Amino acid sequence: MMSIDDAASEIALSAKLFDVLRERSLDPPGVSRASYGEGERMAHEVARRTATMLGCEVHTDFAGNLYMTLPGTDRSLPAVMIGSHLDAVPHGGNFDGAAGVVAGLGTLARLQRSGRPRKRDVVVMGIRAEELSWFPAPYIGSRAAMGLIPPEVLDTVVRRDTGRTLASHIAEEGFDPESIRAGRRAFDPQRVHCFLELHIEQGPVLVDADVPVGIVTGIRGNIRCRHCRVTGQYAHAGAVPRPQRRDAVLGAAAFIHALERLWLDYENDGRDFVATVGQLGTDADHHTITKIAGDVRFTIDMRSEDEAILDDAWRRLADIATQISRERGVTIDLGSHTRAPAATMDAGLRRQLLHHAGKQGIRVMNVPSGGGHDCAVFANSGIRSAMIFVRNDHGSHNPDEHMEISDFGQAMRLMMALVDELVSE
Amino acid sequence: MMSIDDAASEIALSAKLFDVLRERSLDPPGVSRASYGEGERMAHEVARRTATMLGCEVHTDFAGNLYMTLPGTDRSLPAVMIGSHLDAVPHGGNFDGAAGVVAGLGTLARLQRSGRPRKRDVVVMGIRAEELSWFPAPYIGSRAAMGLIPPEVLDTVVRRDTGRTLASHIAEEGFDPESIRAGRRAFDPQRVHCFLELHIEQGPVLVDADVPVGIVTGIRGNIRCRHCRVTGQYAHAGAVPRPQRRDAVLGAAAFIHALERLWLDYENDGRDFVATVGQLGTDADHHTITKIAGDVRFTIDMRSEDEAILDDAWRRLADIATQISRERGVTIDLGSHTRAPAATMDAGLRRQLLHHAGKQGIRVMNVPSGGGHDCAVFANSGIRSAMIFVRNDHGSHNPDEHMEISDFGQAMRLMMALVDELVSE
Repeated sequence: MMSIDDAASEIALSAKLFDVLRERSLDPPGVSRASYGEGERMAHEVARRTATMLGCEVHTDFAGNLYMTLPGTDRSLPAVMIGSHLDAVPHGGNFDGAAGVVAGLGTLARLQRSGRPRKRDVVVMGIRAEELSWFPAPYIGSRAAMGLIPPEVLDTVVRRDTGRTLASHIAEEGFDPESIRAGRRAFDPQRVHCFLELHIEQGPVLVDADVPVGIVTGIRGNIRCRHCRVTGQYAHAGAVPRPQRRDAVLGAAAFIHALERLWLDYENDGRDFVATVGQLGTDADHHTITKIAGDVRFTIDMRSEDEAILDDAWRRLADIATQISRERGVTIDLGSHTRAPAATMDAGLRRQLLHHAGKQGIRVMNVPSGGGHDCAVFANSGIRSAMIFVRNDHGSHNPDEHMEISDFGQAMRLMMALVDELVSE
Repeated sequence: MMSIDDAASEIALSAKLFDVLRERSLDPPGVSRASYGEGERMAHEVARRTATMLGCEVHTDFAGNLYMTLPGTDRSLPAVMIGSHLDAVPHGGNFDGAAGVVAGLGTLARLQRSGRPRKRDVVVMGIRAEELSWFPAPYIGSRAAMGLIPPEVLDTVVRRDTGRTLASHIAEEGFDPESIRAGRRAFDPQRVHCFLELHIEQGPVLVDADVPVGIVTGIRGNIRCRHCRVTGQYAHAGAVPRPQRRDAVLGAAAFIHALERLWLDYENDGRDFVATVGQLGTDADHHTITKIAGDVRFTIDMRSEDEAILDDAWRRLADIATQISRERGVTIDLGSHTRAPAATMDAGLRRQLLHHAGKQGIRVMNVPSGGGHDCAVFANSGIRSAMIFVRNDHGSHNPDEHMEISDFGQAMRLMMALVDELVSE
């Protein structure tokens, strides 16, 4: 196996693709690429033309996912698949999602340029509708490809800007919601050798460590409670002694404080865990500065690479809620919750990535993925999967997201080296 | 001095007055008596007619406060004044405020019935606009009577339901905002021997102690912060490690938790203090379940009979805010605050009330007033003042407020006994 050159022409192609995508989806301050809408359609078209130019076979599935295939010599072998999504949050950054498809196209370009024989097909997948900000349902494109969308989602989930259903938008783009409803698969997971996703990091770990590329250890699963509620009793702020109060704000503060202490415990034990109360509030219809609050609502988002920690946290939070409720005469109800499984990144692929990083002189570090990614759907469908993170400042989902093209180049070179090995097997 | 009889006819008169007031201001579920509006006007008219029937001199001042005077034999002596307010919060209870005026009228009725000579005038004052829910400015009627309304209040404070200024509403009711603007006094505090206010308790202390009547030790002063704010940084809920987070919700929870610990310290030291965070919330325009919150706003209402404790709490909260801000990379800004002074109830009058309670077989206990009352304005204007609380279930400012007429009768009898003594001096 030869070493990867500087991939200058593929990096130049990538930079040009990023520019085109940005220009055509500008929505100051940032870009907008609506799932099953104008911006996403444009991005799929840009990818399709580039792939065609590179001599790829191109097709879309019933959900509108795009497959761009560079054939290998033995087409009976399971393919190497590279992919990410092409939608983007409203007024977001240009790289979240797109970087993975662009890196895939760059990899195809280099495979073509090198002219060396490839045993396997290499497929770049442009995935639909990953961002929750348009349709509030996770991983629509990748789950549809795996036949995993519950039928009711098609008719009950609506796009936030149009108010129209997912099924209606899919049909409008020329795809087939009935195949999704029937739970068909777009491809057989056994026909995929492995799935690789390159993505900007959505947190500051690589920036803080001054390392350009991350090898993802796993994708955190989560438990989400959207409807937590502390019920106490509204009463006069001045006239009720402390022991008689049933103060929902003090109850909520005590609960959140306890959640933070639980987190510190996990941290001290070296366990992977993060927790966020993103929404919190008294009831604007009833609260005043001079009234003890009788009602507080809040959300919880807890994540871990380790399902056992999520189980443990859930049990302990339920106990904490019971205890605080009893001590304070309030009722803390965590309400219904949703759960997304953690996804394990393939240990073999991770080792190969580490090996190639060393060989190519690319500085890398292990990093967990706090955000969810399509890669998790494929990993949990039994496909060996790996993710490469690119250093990115200011987080994602905002117009200040900032990835250096040189960092992207390093990450893409790492992917190229791995793909070179995988197509030679 | 003779002992008070069962005051059956005055209790019957009071019950009738309460019924009339309720009937004429019904606004289910509860009653509404708008400050400088229909319900308050009606209540003043009911009081005026009753007083006239009892043979009182009646007049109103420039602010619309009503004075109903039973003359004494020596009109050069300072008068005994009894009073409370006649407005009521929207959909509130029937007794908050009205009980004090009705008890005053009952006391006048009994003085007439007894036929005994009185040295001093006894004046019942029906006070305007005490409730903050109509005009968000405290003690409008009593402060106007003392010449204490800042002129700008007349033009900047608007009634919540009409959006029109205080000055406009006062003029509409036929009174004279320009006298208020000029800071005139409706009467000279030195012409008042003492001010007595009977009021339902707004907290559960008497109910919990199973005691019908409270002798108020003092009216708590307060510090109020309407615009507290924790500023952190919005970021991805899954992708940012704990030490890099600047989580405004965790900052707010830590602050509120610290405020509660401060309170427990005061309680352990036997100091009078209560604190309430009545309003709390993340920013609905930016928060989501999957984003670390960058902004939390909240209010603080702290009260104590002891000004030194309020000073101390204010200093310590500022320190706590600074410390949490530093530790957590957030900024806690307590914003502007308002301060209302505590009011001391006259020790001599309190002793006299205790004495008469013993003599009349009325069970009483000492209780602080957590809520503000017009009585505080007069006390802080140099008038010796006392307050009597009546046991009341379910708090005030709501339609479930519940005072037993027999408890009211006990409290009124206590007031009658004190007034008997005061008019004989």
